[in-house]
Amino acid sequence: MARRADRAGDGDDDAADVGGMPSPSALLPPLDAEQVEVLRRVGREWGRVTGDPAAWRRALPVSPDLGGFPAPGEIRPAALGRHVRISSLGGEPSAIELTEGDEAGPGRRARAARLLRRAVLGMPLRSSAIARERLRKRVALPVLSADALSSVAYGPEALLAVLLLAGVAGLGYTSPIAAVIVVLMVAVGLSYRQTIRAYPHGGGSYLVASANLGRTPGLLAAAGLMTDYVLTVSVSVASGVAAISPVFPKVANSPVPLGVLVILLLLAGNLRGVRQAGRLFALPTYAFVLAMFLLVGVGLFQAAGHGFTPEATPHPPATEAVTLFLVLRALASGSTAMAGIEAISNAVPIFQPPEWRNARTTLTMMVSLLVVLFVGIITLVHLTGVIPHHHETLLSQLAHHVLGSGPAYVFVQLATASVLLLAANTAYNDFPRVLFLLARDWHAPRIFLRLGDRLAFSHGIIVLTVAALVIFVAFGGRTAALIPLYAVGVFLAFTLSQTGMVVHWHRARGRVHDRHRRRSLLLNGTGAVLAGIVFVAAVVTKFLAGAWVAVFTIGGFLLLAKRVRRHYDRVGEALRLRPHAFDLPTAGSQVPAPEAEPETGPETGTGTGQATETATDAETEEAPEQIHHLSVVPVAVLDLAGMRALAYAAALRQPVLALHISPSDEEAERFRENWREWGDHLPLEVVVTPYRAIVAPLIDYLEVLHRQRPDLTMTVILPEIVPRRRRHRLLHSRVAGRLRRALRTLPKIVVTTVPFHVE
Amino acid sequence: MARRADRAGDGDDDAADVGGMPSPSALLPPLDAEQVEVLRRVGREWGRVTGDPAAWRRALPVSPDLGGFPAPGEIRPAALGRHVRISSLGGEPSAIELTEGDEAGPGRRARAARLLRRAVLGMPLRSSAIARERLRKRVALPVLSADALSSVAYGPEALLAVLLLAGVAGLGYTSPIAAVIVVLMVAVGLSYRQTIRAYPHGGGSYLVASANLGRTPGLLAAAGLMTDYVLTVSVSVASGVAAISPVFPKVANSPVPLGVLVILLLLAGNLRGVRQAGRLFALPTYAFVLAMFLLVGVGLFQAAGHGFTPEATPHPPATEAVTLFLVLRALASGSTAMAGIEAISNAVPIFQPPEWRNARTTLTMMVSLLVVLFVGIITLVHLTGVIPHHHETLLSQLAHHVLGSGPAYVFVQLATASVLLLAANTAYNDFPRVLFLLARDWHAPRIFLRLGDRLAFSHGIIVLTVAALVIFVAFGGRTAALIPLYAVGVFLAFTLSQTGMVVHWHRARGRVHDRHRRRSLLLNGTGAVLAGIVFVAAVVTKFLAGAWVAVFTIGGFLLLAKRVRRHYDRVGEALRLRPHAFDLPTAGSQVPAPEAEPETGPETGTGTGQATETATDAETEEAPEQIHHLSVVPVAVLDLAGMRALAYAAALRQPVLALHISPSDEEAERFRENWREWGDHLPLEVVVTPYRAIVAPLIDYLEVLHRQRPDLTMTVILPEIVPRRRRHRLLHSRVAGRLRRALRTLPKIVVTTVPFHVE
Repeated sequence: MARRADRAGDGDDDAADVGGMPSPSALLPPLDAEQVEVLRRVGREWGRVTGDPAAWRRALPVSPDLGGFPAPGEIRPAALGRHVRISSLGGEPSAIELTEGDEAGPGRRARAARLLRRAVLGMPLRSSAIARERLRKRVALPVLSADALSSVAYGPEALLAVLLLAGVAGLGYTSPIAAVIVVLMVAVGLSYRQTIRAYPHGGGSYLVASANLGRTPGLLAAAGLMTDYVLTVSVSVASGVAAISPVFPKVANSPVPLGVLVILLLLAGNLRGVRQAGRLFALPTYAFVLAMFLLVGVGLFQAAGHGFTPEATPHPPATEAVTLFLVLRALASGSTAMAGIEAISNAVPIFQPPEWRNARTTLTMMVSLLVVLFVGIITLVHLTGVIPHHHETLLSQLAHHVLGSGPAYVFVQLATASVLLLAANTAYNDFPRVLFLLARDWHAPRIFLRLGDRLAFSHGIIVLTVAALVIFVAFGGRTAALIPLYAVGVFLAFTLSQTGMVVHWHRARGRVHDRHRRRSLLLNGTGAVLAGIVFVAAVVTKFLAGAWVAVFTIGGFLLLAKRVRRHYDRVGEALRLRPHAFDLPTAGSQVPAPEAEPETGPETGTGTGQATETATDAETEEAPEQIHHLSVVPVAVLDLAGMRALAYAAALRQPVLALHISPSDEEAERFRENWREWGDHLPLEVVVTPYRAIVAPLIDYLEVLHRQRPDLTMTVILPEIVPRRRRHRLLHSRVAGRLRRALRTLPKIVVTTVPFHVE
Repeated sequence: MARRADRAGDGDDDAADVGGMPSPSALLPPLDAEQVEVLRRVGREWGRVTGDPAAWRRALPVSPDLGGFPAPGEIRPAALGRHVRISSLGGEPSAIELTEGDEAGPGRRARAARLLRRAVLGMPLRSSAIARERLRKRVALPVLSADALSSVAYGPEALLAVLLLAGVAGLGYTSPIAAVIVVLMVAVGLSYRQTIRAYPHGGGSYLVASANLGRTPGLLAAAGLMTDYVLTVSVSVASGVAAISPVFPKVANSPVPLGVLVILLLLAGNLRGVRQAGRLFALPTYAFVLAMFLLVGVGLFQAAGHGFTPEATPHPPATEAVTLFLVLRALASGSTAMAGIEAISNAVPIFQPPEWRNARTTLTMMVSLLVVLFVGIITLVHLTGVIPHHHETLLSQLAHHVLGSGPAYVFVQLATASVLLLAANTAYNDFPRVLFLLARDWHAPRIFLRLGDRLAFSHGIIVLTVAALVIFVAFGGRTAALIPLYAVGVFLAFTLSQTGMVVHWHRARGRVHDRHRRRSLLLNGTGAVLAGIVFVAAVVTKFLAGAWVAVFTIGGFLLLAKRVRRHYDRVGEALRLRPHAFDLPTAGSQVPAPEAEPETGPETGTGTGQATETATDAETEEAPEQIHHLSVVPVAVLDLAGMRALAYAAALRQPVLALHISPSDEEAERFRENWREWGDHLPLEVVVTPYRAIVAPLIDYLEVLHRQRPDLTMTVILPEIVPRRRRHRLLHSRVAGRLRRALRTLPKIVVTTVPFHVE
């Protein structure tokens, strides 16, 4: 549990400075100024009771900086059979560094697990390898725009599928709606150009919304983004599988296993940290753009041959009338072609400097490409009269129509499939990063802050994989069913992000040039309004068709994230140092440094019920003199393991009570007899348990002791036999483990396990 | 781990005095005389260093006999939310007893689990309830002989099924082989009469064989018995289901689910401790005997009507010639009718006194009944000319033939089914008892010594259930396939037990009356030879037909049991107290009682590499002055949890080293800065781990410290945040748990968990 210096981030622009870059120190954020001050005061209290720090240092029986151990280059025997090598770096303060990272137990199984891990993931990377890699524009463009560009593989189809319900009359609305979508693309693109400028360290929707609009809008944007990313994986993989089905007909028979395999490959690749393969990833996007230009170009050339007159359209039957509802629904469906447009604004820091300028240029290029491809495909659909069809994707139909079934067709399909795969991969980059930001703001488990061996957020990657797999399998790998879920999350994030930018510019009065500010305000305002309209349209028109799932998911996520934060807030409050919590110590209760001669012994009571004034269940002791020790040693048998536990306890020079749990009176008497033979050196109590329970009476006994002296910190010292081989553990009592788990929940009870290793 | 006083039992008759009765103290056997002597010497060493025992007693801050806590009858608030009530009984020495047994954590889930447990099992029983119940002969007879008597439901059929292979010529051998089996029954019965006399505390095959023949024969007998019991459950349940199939034809369609259900009911009943229902259990056996007498009587009466001339036999085709091999195979199959004959000799102590005499009388009655029923059924088969048939059991055919299909027939079938069920239940009594004996002799995990809530050996019952279920389901509930497996185990146990008795009488020269001894020698010798012949016949003639499974199982069991014993022997050796292991202490290293003023501080080294002469990895410290402490406190953050762990460590007044594992140099510097702000009261070392691992560098660091001073006992004090609710654990680091597991395997490292409870 770490202190939170970054708590106050809500409501101002500071978050922009923090940005979205991962850092291995995120798990251990710095203390805030107030806590440092408290720390100083706590330290003064300690100083009065612990005496000279130098004495404690002299008392150390080892040299903590490992002076000379191990000798440089020495290959140490695996005496303790393990793990990594650390070595002293020398210098002042003495520094120790891990020189070789690998984490695996001894044993054969652990070694096999490590080998497998290394084979799949590769060798671990040092933290300092973060952010070494910067991308040039011509590499960043394909890597970051795969998601957005690939959306044209399913966006137009989704649009037409809705209009088709109204037959020929419906299809007539294709061009106006497409025009609106193009306007949307341009507006959102311009909006994000402003965001990039204002948040040069990375301005994802979550950061912008929470910085400017507050915590709840931020979490809503994060929820929208995260559902979006999960769906991107499912939809892209499903579309990719659909794209290659006509090429490899055998694949078409089992789309679900193939899709699952693809998702698992994405998992493995991302755990390995595939970001390094950026250059390789440029290929599919460029191939896809080339394929689309080929398709549209040849199509237009053919159409020019017969004077751009549309070919004969089949007359599909109308099942619905053309209503505003239908039009809005078509708009919402078609807008999924914009999914992924925000990717560049998230990733500004990976550009070469000047980052923000390069990112803006790239964004402009991406939006231009997106508009061109979208318009081209819609035009081609209009000219060829192709309509959506259950057995073949729209793009495949177009390619068949324009390019026949030759190698050109295969090229288009393969390029589409690979760019969709790449789009799914984009989600793998972004989803864990949003989780990282949420965890940094205490809205998600802290584990999502941890960078894996390969500097990827392994836990977030695994969560994304599981969620995507569940959805993909549950929907049987059919894309169309997922589209309604899609638009809600995407446009929720757009709307909140752009609204956040409006507030940002509004607040920036006086800080930035006024003309720039007004222009930005206008652009972001337009973006926010347009995105908001599409969001509302998506929720309203598709609510019953499935958007309710997305709405409930987002709502549930919001609740959960707030609860997580509340829990962390309470824990943080409980963990704060409180300098006034302890009363000033008296000289007599001074805890001497171990080698110093103590002036008096520890103040231990001699009777019962001698509860001190600090007697509570609360675990608020912050200084040594507040802790009054009592060691309780449960001993079953007077063998070497039990004797060592008693010796360990006695050597601590704190009051010791030995406890024996006996199943019968006769056995109890026998044990007492042995104890007397031994010499009765330590106080013993025997509890007879006619029901043969061991854990329960021990806990009850400790509870009664706790009631006698609630101020005592009781240390339960458990002897535990630890066989070397795992299979031998079956042969030994598991009482120590059960006791440890049961005692965990008791206040002021510390559990010490004294292991006794055999064989 | 307990000391073993009963180790030396091999090879003499002492085991007879111990008997097979369960005892809750078995888990804690008394120390042997040598260990008590060693204990005394160890105690003298302690006395030199720990000082006045009274001082330690005075130092106790609590009164361990709970004086006045809680007040009698007081309903204490569930402050620590738990478990049982213990109360002081007063007196000298002070005694504490559990007044109400129940073991369940706080939380709703634990309470629900407890309710379910109580509903299925009933309230727990006190240990003193053991052996309160004694059975009269007329109750003991049906309870203990169900297994043996029910065997006639499948024994004759198994015999005929083999002879049938040789057609009419084969069936001609029925009478001679049956006669041999009767001789066997009488001989084995007489043999067991001797066993009961010689082992009045219970003389199961395992006890007799291991006491007289040595460890390996004893284990072989146990293995034979245990496979026998597992098969008894499977075969009896299968036969019982087959018996009611003609009555309830719907049942016949799904024998496996019904059989599984029956086995699970047996499990539940036996966990609850169904032994109490003895009286109820008398019914099925008497009903079965009555039914058999009815069947045989009416059959003979009908046969008398036509002058005892056998009816026309169908002429089955012969597929094999009559060979010695076939005859022996038939003998081995038919002998399964004797399974269960040893039950009474196992259970002598449950008879009313004089136990052995009542048990012998009961055994005689049982064998007489068995012979009568067996002969009657074979005769009836001969007279009616019924032959085994795939679709109906032999007994059912006989009953149909003699009694028609009316209520008398139904009575016979139901009585057969219920006695078979009871026979399966007998195995539930005996199997866990054999496991108990094995565990007492360190040949099986100690857990089988534990008596459950209801004084049943729950773990053995569960093992039997699992094994029986696996076999029953694997064989699809068909009895015939299991018969070959059966005879091997049964007759192996008989042979070894009787051979053991021969040795017993041979050794008893001079101790018992010579005529009695010679007569017994003759009887047991005959029994041993005959049983041995059947055993060899069973193995040889049925080896390929399935007996090899039994042979390999028994062999595997033998190996496993010996390995278990070897492990326990090694552990026992390691755990023995060794008074000479420690060098005499110097005055300076005296460990003072906690309240006494120490003359000097503990001897802690001040440099590195100052390994003392006792420096080893071995954990052999037996006395406090041999233990040199170093507390290592891994601190991630300077919050209250971390501060409490530091305070806990400092209050122990032993050398303390704080350790911080840092992911980066910057973070390391920041932490050092905070540490200085605090006042640098304790020595701190920071390890930078660029690979972000936490567990591995900590372990490696400790390893290096251990190499500096192998004599040190290092206590790793881990602060751990423990949320009240289980679901909140996901939100907190699990590093403490992982560290604890990883540190478990390291020598001389003690792990202390200082919990910090939140919410």
